[in-house]
Amino acid sequence: MKNLLVASTSTIFGGHFLQYLLPELKEHFKGINTLLFIPYARPGGISYDSYTSIVAEALKDFSFAVKGIHEFDDAKLAIDQAEAVFVGGGNTFVLVDQLYRQDLIKPLKKRLENGIPYLGTSAGSNIVGLSVKTTNDMPIVHPETLEALGMIPFNINPHYLDPDPDSKHKGETRETRIKEFHSCNNTTVIGLREGSWISVKDKQMLLKGEFNARIFKQGKAPFELPPNSDLQQLI
Amino acid sequence: MKNLLVASTSTIFGGHFLQYLLPELKEHFKGINTLLFIPYARPGGISYDSYTSIVAEALKDFSFAVKGIHEFDDAKLAIDQAEAVFVGGGNTFVLVDQLYRQDLIKPLKKRLENGIPYLGTSAGSNIVGLSVKTTNDMPIVHPETLEALGMIPFNINPHYLDPDPDSKHKGETRETRIKEFHSCNNTTVIGLREGSWISVKDKQMLLKGEFNARIFKQGKAPFELPPNSDLQQLI
Repeated sequence: MKNLLVASTSTIFGGHFLQYLLPELKEHFKGINTLLFIPYARPGGISYDSYTSIVAEALKDFSFAVKGIHEFDDAKLAIDQAEAVFVGGGNTFVLVDQLYRQDLIKPLKKRLENGIPYLGTSAGSNIVGLSVKTTNDMPIVHPETLEALGMIPFNINPHYLDPDPDSKHKGETRETRIKEFHSCNNTTVIGLREGSWISVKDKQMLLKGEFNARIFKQGKAPFELPPNSDLQQLI
Repeated sequence: MKNLLVASTSTIFGGHFLQYLLPELKEHFKGINTLLFIPYARPGGISYDSYTSIVAEALKDFSFAVKGIHEFDDAKLAIDQAEAVFVGGGNTFVLVDQLYRQDLIKPLKKRLENGIPYLGTSAGSNIVGLSVKTTNDMPIVHPETLEALGMIPFNINPHYLDPDPDSKHKGETRETRIKEFHSCNNTTVIGLREGSWISVKDKQMLLKGEFNARIFKQGKAPFELPPNSDLQQLI
């Protein structure tokens, strides 16, 4: 049993933090008393406390409390006993580095396999895949490995961005980067546009939100899948 | 003695491969018989041979030959005996991974310290800095380390891109990413716009091309340096 909500982004243009997901989260986190928030990917400059406060503020109309993992003496125990977990965005390398340094990957994986509700946004969604080798982030730290939770048999590319036909910039497009990924890896990549998420309920993996996802399979031309597609067909 | 040409990109909008640098390269590679090209960062899909042919074609009006490092039985010896080296762009992680796997970082560093002319573009410029932790590339492989040649006491961010004020995308801007880098690293970062390069002659490090560079120092507001500035002032 798995129960995951894997979102491209925490925030869409013109909206507040998590705002567009609130109706979905009401159902997703139904019945819990406390949500464990993991702020390790924190965007530069803000403290774990501040990041946790932003989450608590965004979810203040729900009947559960939000507690940051850094508030616990024993982070592993906090995960072992969590009713539900949210891993927020920021820098994926920093997040993965912390999870491995504190030996939290296995405990987290175990809890998610046991079916507690999980929410990931951006970096927190990257880690749900097989590896974080399709992150868009800058490698500002060097984790011991880029292997991730492997809760879905794909990699995620969050904040997926279509090429700008008017661009004069010669840096690689996102599509080119993912093509490069497939020159050394055979994992299928889900390009998840902002406003999209994947709802994982055991083996079912539905694409949600109003946008198509762009799918990259090694050796094949990329293609689009519409909302409500079950990603199981990609296995 | 150092003699390096560290370019943001191989190609600018509307131009051919290396075209905008040809006048500079004529002087830079004066008197050599053979240029050793290192294609290890190769962009997805093309072979080392094809990549080397593109370089040879771009430099065909010069009087030297272009030889790919993969054409030699002993890559280390090829570097030890090189008259001049060009490391091209592609994926920085793939490049660094190959250089470490083949134990080529030290020999290359030694040759550059001895003053042979070096040209780097994009990934080939990233490796000139202290680390490649400010690359824009996707971490499609996981090298043993991200430490680099350290030929200049900075990091490079090639293809530096200003934030788009009209963007509705919520992914991080380049400036935000470099700010995140400075939350865990104190190395000064040179944001090198496409069309800019750094000419390193021993201790002198001149910004060349027609654009400003954007400079990021830990704990300070980013600022601009105009063309022909000596980057020594940043130490």
